[in-house]
Amino acid sequence: MSTISIIGSGGMAAAIGGLAGKAGHTVEVTSRDAAKARALAKQIGAGATTGRFGAAPVGDIVILAVPYSAVLDVVKQYGERLAGKLIVDITNPIKSDFKGFLTPEDSFGAQEIARVAPDNATVVKAFNTQNAQVLAAGPIGGHPLDVFIAGDDSQAKARVSSFINSLGLRPMDTGRLIMARTLEHACMLWLGLMTHAIKHTNFSIRVSLLG
Amino acid sequence: MSTISIIGSGGMAAAIGGLAGKAGHTVEVTSRDAAKARALAKQIGAGATTGRFGAAPVGDIVILAVPYSAVLDVVKQYGERLAGKLIVDITNPIKSDFKGFLTPEDSFGAQEIARVAPDNATVVKAFNTQNAQVLAAGPIGGHPLDVFIAGDDSQAKARVSSFINSLGLRPMDTGRLIMARTLEHACMLWLGLMTHAIKHTNFSIRVSLLG
Repeated sequence: MSTISIIGSGGMAAAIGGLAGKAGHTVEVTSRDAAKARALAKQIGAGATTGRFGAAPVGDIVILAVPYSAVLDVVKQYGERLAGKLIVDITNPIKSDFKGFLTPEDSFGAQEIARVAPDNATVVKAFNTQNAQVLAAGPIGGHPLDVFIAGDDSQAKARVSSFINSLGLRPMDTGRLIMARTLEHACMLWLGLMTHAIKHTNFSIRVSLLG
Repeated sequence: MSTISIIGSGGMAAAIGGLAGKAGHTVEVTSRDAAKARALAKQIGAGATTGRFGAAPVGDIVILAVPYSAVLDVVKQYGERLAGKLIVDITNPIKSDFKGFLTPEDSFGAQEIARVAPDNATVVKAFNTQNAQVLAAGPIGGHPLDVFIAGDDSQAKARVSSFINSLGLRPMDTGRLIMARTLEHACMLWLGLMTHAIKHTNFSIRVSLLG
């Protein structure tokens, strides 16, 4: 079991932190709002602690569970205190009207994060196609939920995959970090399905294997 | 039942044409290679016919089942003979090394097709996230395959949805034609999964509904 630091205290922080606590990981919750961090650590239980926002996270795996609109400033504020860390980017740089992306035309969220993170930090994209409530609810129809991942460092992806497996989820490697752009579009696909075909949020995009 | 014109004679033409023939639609197959078109019409059976490449398709729904690298020239060659037609774009403008898209940074395949199609033709994106063999094989684990669609014209999307339903597949509307860019990324996701997580082609990306 590992120590996992989560920066953020919203729905995704609660969902991933809750699964991690149940799986026996030690969770550190950090938020700009210290009271929210304490409340979430209490909710997670299992020895979860809180960290000071901006201080070096105790976990080797640091999950950025803040909105994309805040994440670049958060990473810049942490600066060298993220050196050597495995940063898991779960954000989606999607406009609030769902009509496009907040990132420059030739870039994507994970790349923007990698640009402002310390050189020796590693960024892996994961969890960004999962809805917090669906993630917290667990397997659908007996199938574990699929967590798509992308990153340039195979060892880092293996560690994230193993963490995902430990939560009862199915990691699905999609390739190098450039595929994070495609995963950000996969969130847009989820939003398009939610607003058009499905009209509720209780669903997940997954892989069905033939036979 | 409708008359469906398919331009192309490859794997996707065979898969969609085969399902359409079985469902009782009249299929017209047209290809630059007339012998291939005849062979596919014979394989489809169910009264399938062949059309002359470049002549006005008999079907109101015209499925562009040629590679993206050829499709713009094909649409230009047909020109006004596609006037008033419901054009179904199943193409993926993805480079052969899977490392990016063939379309300009600010565009996507369905939009490029719409730009060269007659003004009163309607473009609906569909079927582009399905592998031909998987599509031909049918439901996975008792679930119909999901066919994601995108388009600006609701009536056209309703007709395509009804066609998809008639084939035993589940149409999934994702929104306006701009979502075709996201669906082209969903094919990139399929390719990333195929080359990394899964390492074979017998799978489909689908929606799992909770509960």
